[in-house]
Amino acid sequence: MDLYKIKDPSFVKGMSIDQLNELSAEVRKFLIENLSSTGGHLGANLGVVELTLALHKVYESPKDRFLFDVGHQSYIHKILTGRAGKFDTLRQYQGLCGFPKRNESEHDVWETGHSSTSLSAAMGMAIARDLNEEDHSILPIIGDGALTGGMALEALNHIGDEKKNVTVILNDNEMSIAKNVGALHSALGRMRSAGKYNRAKDDLEWLLKRIPAVGGKLAQAAERLKDSMKYFVVPGMFFEELGFTYYGPVDGHDYHDLLENLNYAKKTEGPVIIHVITQKGKGYHPAESDQKDKWHGVGPYKIESGEKIKAVDSPPAWSEVISETLRKEARKDKRVVAVTPAMVLGSKLEKFQAEFPDRLFDVGIAEQHATTLSAGLATQGMKPFLAIYSTFLQRGYDQVIHDVARQNLNVMFGIDRAGLVGADGETHQGVFDVAFLRSVPNMVVMMPKDENEGQHMVHTAVNYDDGPIAVRYPRGNGNGVEMDEDLITIPVGSWEVLQEGTDAVILTFGTTISMALEASKRLRKEGLSVRVVNARFIKPLDEPMLHDIMKDNLPILTVEEAVLQGGFGSSVLEFKEENNYTSWIKRLGVPDRFIEHGSVPKLWEEIGLTEDNIIKQIKGITLTKQQRA
Amino acid sequence: MDLYKIKDPSFVKGMSIDQLNELSAEVRKFLIENLSSTGGHLGANLGVVELTLALHKVYESPKDRFLFDVGHQSYIHKILTGRAGKFDTLRQYQGLCGFPKRNESEHDVWETGHSSTSLSAAMGMAIARDLNEEDHSILPIIGDGALTGGMALEALNHIGDEKKNVTVILNDNEMSIAKNVGALHSALGRMRSAGKYNRAKDDLEWLLKRIPAVGGKLAQAAERLKDSMKYFVVPGMFFEELGFTYYGPVDGHDYHDLLENLNYAKKTEGPVIIHVITQKGKGYHPAESDQKDKWHGVGPYKIESGEKIKAVDSPPAWSEVISETLRKEARKDKRVVAVTPAMVLGSKLEKFQAEFPDRLFDVGIAEQHATTLSAGLATQGMKPFLAIYSTFLQRGYDQVIHDVARQNLNVMFGIDRAGLVGADGETHQGVFDVAFLRSVPNMVVMMPKDENEGQHMVHTAVNYDDGPIAVRYPRGNGNGVEMDEDLITIPVGSWEVLQEGTDAVILTFGTTISMALEASKRLRKEGLSVRVVNARFIKPLDEPMLHDIMKDNLPILTVEEAVLQGGFGSSVLEFKEENNYTSWIKRLGVPDRFIEHGSVPKLWEEIGLTEDNIIKQIKGITLTKQQRA
Repeated sequence: MDLYKIKDPSFVKGMSIDQLNELSAEVRKFLIENLSSTGGHLGANLGVVELTLALHKVYESPKDRFLFDVGHQSYIHKILTGRAGKFDTLRQYQGLCGFPKRNESEHDVWETGHSSTSLSAAMGMAIARDLNEEDHSILPIIGDGALTGGMALEALNHIGDEKKNVTVILNDNEMSIAKNVGALHSALGRMRSAGKYNRAKDDLEWLLKRIPAVGGKLAQAAERLKDSMKYFVVPGMFFEELGFTYYGPVDGHDYHDLLENLNYAKKTEGPVIIHVITQKGKGYHPAESDQKDKWHGVGPYKIESGEKIKAVDSPPAWSEVISETLRKEARKDKRVVAVTPAMVLGSKLEKFQAEFPDRLFDVGIAEQHATTLSAGLATQGMKPFLAIYSTFLQRGYDQVIHDVARQNLNVMFGIDRAGLVGADGETHQGVFDVAFLRSVPNMVVMMPKDENEGQHMVHTAVNYDDGPIAVRYPRGNGNGVEMDEDLITIPVGSWEVLQEGTDAVILTFGTTISMALEASKRLRKEGLSVRVVNARFIKPLDEPMLHDIMKDNLPILTVEEAVLQGGFGSSVLEFKEENNYTSWIKRLGVPDRFIEHGSVPKLWEEIGLTEDNIIKQIKGITLTKQQRA
Repeated sequence: MDLYKIKDPSFVKGMSIDQLNELSAEVRKFLIENLSSTGGHLGANLGVVELTLALHKVYESPKDRFLFDVGHQSYIHKILTGRAGKFDTLRQYQGLCGFPKRNESEHDVWETGHSSTSLSAAMGMAIARDLNEEDHSILPIIGDGALTGGMALEALNHIGDEKKNVTVILNDNEMSIAKNVGALHSALGRMRSAGKYNRAKDDLEWLLKRIPAVGGKLAQAAERLKDSMKYFVVPGMFFEELGFTYYGPVDGHDYHDLLENLNYAKKTEGPVIIHVITQKGKGYHPAESDQKDKWHGVGPYKIESGEKIKAVDSPPAWSEVISETLRKEARKDKRVVAVTPAMVLGSKLEKFQAEFPDRLFDVGIAEQHATTLSAGLATQGMKPFLAIYSTFLQRGYDQVIHDVARQNLNVMFGIDRAGLVGADGETHQGVFDVAFLRSVPNMVVMMPKDENEGQHMVHTAVNYDDGPIAVRYPRGNGNGVEMDEDLITIPVGSWEVLQEGTDAVILTFGTTISMALEASKRLRKEGLSVRVVNARFIKPLDEPMLHDIMKDNLPILTVEEAVLQGGFGSSVLEFKEENNYTSWIKRLGVPDRFIEHGSVPKLWEEIGLTEDNIIKQIKGITLTKQQRA
């Protein structure tokens, strides 16, 4: 079948199971081939081929609402809803989004990227449906990892209580982004292997019938047992306790099993959970045999061998530099422990975990808990390092304020993927943390100019005992600079002049330093002497240096890969006004809108974070008053 | 016994049950008397008198860690740890904090205010204890309401999995701040009335013994049943599934029951949950018979009758004005629904609930879910109004960004308790929302000058169809202004000149408008003509008006009851720089530190939000350049 010709998914309804199996193979081939050149979330999608086709067979999208939690497993849904032809642009600038996107298709009814949102959204949709007296199904499709996110549990609690018709598809692939953790996961494990318990209820009924119907204690006991039978364990006890009807476990690669259970569910009143067991990477050997989930999100690869195609030899990844420094610090300082919300791999903490299995805590997808857990550790004199992506720290915002900063506890934040992240797009851009952290009292926020300074910042954080301290670092690889052997403590609030200059000053940090230096070089040729400052402390500012700059009334350009509203540049404006200076200041950064997916350089261009624009801005602010007028 | 003479809680250890009962009565008398003049969280504390004394009898604080979740139920703990003498200053400026406070006592090991944090903190402390090879107990004391907060569930999941020795005291008073909701609460209800199921397991064992030991199907069935017996329902099935040993239900007002179970728990390895049933308001008739939880947090009252002592007749509460307007809007517009995270009472939504029981959704303490639920509703064309305290919206920050604003959904936020809140203190100050919301794209943020404008803003929000819109309003009562009959739509981004003036401009909104007007009046007498602008749209700014002001190069003072870092004033600075103006700008607001409890006027004084300071600042910025130098 020509997948490129699919317009809408209705054709699936008429397919036999044999045809569905054939189509599944074609879809897998399509995914393996296409993603081998574009990269993408291969493993998760290969795992839900049958599940997605079965959903489209039994239900009717978009009348019935499919909500893909996290959303990276929506590729098959995209193929079935007429988007196969766009897969060559997957996750590229202005190309097909890697997550559900409402402006791509009416079949994408809920946008995701962050995890654990689908159940709450589904409940909202169910309420609206019932108020409007409409009739359709609402199907959040959520992984076992996402299910442990606090808001998913909040939503289960609400849905189960209100008895709304919501059909939760629990896609249990025994692996979220990394190995799953948590007691709930163990409970799922018991459900998975529930064969021997499945018949407990039947057995008891059978047994009770054989008990002579006499009075006295025996009869009373039997009566009580019948009463409590509804509490007998069924594999989905946990969910039944929360008010759901549980179906499963279902073999997620067997159409008979899938269709039977989906059809049951469709007829069931009230909240239902269908526990579907799938295998990540199913049907592609390199991904199937992947124990470490390296095939979760991949770049281009060779189809035959599964070998990853790397552009060139690249410097170590930022995450690697940071976590390896932390490992060294942990050897010297017993107080150092690491906390991660399901990102051992993403944050490159495997080696730390191997060396210090008792000092690394993977709490699953649970950013709120991770943050306050770190606060709890700090109250006891430990030095927890919370390795967390910028975009996911948003989930722990209240905990940063209320638990960490308010109690002024020594929690270290390793803010990974700070700045634009590229292919993952607008749900994952790490551009808010500068603004939201700098308005929190007691916070120290740093960003290194290169990986060597990065390691010094980790050391600085470990040796800082006056409250919370964050080091933010970008996605991707370091600059390839030489690494110092001995780590030093950087004085808190100290900036560094990277390039002297007398006509204007660029204040910038992290990823945008190199473009500032290049711009400065080019401007020098045009006769403008521009100072470039590594404003490595975003908070607190280097006030002595700022006084010097502003006393000289030098024009200033701030450049940041973060939101402009309330960002670093604004803090420089605040300093200027508080101290009655008159330096002319311009700010470059991320404008007040959401930035979609695309390569980071493309996105930089889109928002004007470029050498050319820096040059233009510097020329603007170095005009004399006469020239301006 | 003289409670004022207590230095530390060790004396409790030697007390008999009779003595404990006597002490309980004295503690209750102390609370009822003291709070009758200071106000405070009476109901919750009366409910945990026996529980707190029992904990101090069985455990040894501060070696054993007591973590009071939310923390308003820590008064008895404060009395027992030498703070009875400070109760006349309870929740007053520089007086005793209404929540646990580490700088008050070594017995306060974890500060709270927001709910559901204690389990995560306890887990952090348990990890630290075990790494440091220490030996003590860790006891989070958490209400049934707080337990449904997502982060508490995340923590349960982690604690149960890691099998840490943590003793969770579940204080089940069948009522959090309002009636509890959620499926988990129903599960607790079943546990509470679990008498008839308690013996199910015993019964089955007894029964199985009576089955003839023959082979064949019967024997197999019996064998399987034995196998599955560990999954038999016990009252705490839900918790057992998560890896906890469950004790309960325990009568929280019976020392025999309490001490027996606490002593069991103390000897139990691994995570334990003790389900204690308490009665809020126990021992004080007006609070005991309180079905609506009006005695949760109270002002002064007459001891005999329970009659509340009101200062004077006051204008309607802000929450009341907003929710009543919403009720009117709901009559006209079927799309309007209300969502609240356990704050039907606090947000005065009782009448809305009574009139529209199907259109109000109390989701329990679950701010993340509440936010994304609202987003889900909005995708279906509904107009959800999320009534939420400013400080609790921090919990939904990621959901505001990722689910609401990014999808640009028509969610209305009623941000209650915006600004300083007074007695509840630093955990509850609603001072961050201006900074954190204005950096989120697509957000509209308003604050009315009085309750009449407040009702127009609700109307404006209902009729706004371009994305999320928030109206923030303070704690307490309105200004007592006349209310218009007909509601109008205020043009988005439009400010209002309240007082003309030509020498300087004050830009302010909400609560600080009146002091600005007064200051302007006084300055007029000194010959300074100061314009006062109601900057009722915090985002977007009234750009035409700002252009006019800055073209005239008028000096500007911004005044806001919100954090200065990245706040409203900073957005005015950003506007100035973007447009190359030179107006001299000063900003007043909440400085970069946490503000403790105290009456709002006292706190205003502390941080310089006063008429006098406004006058001083205006004088400063209206100096000529010569005068400045």
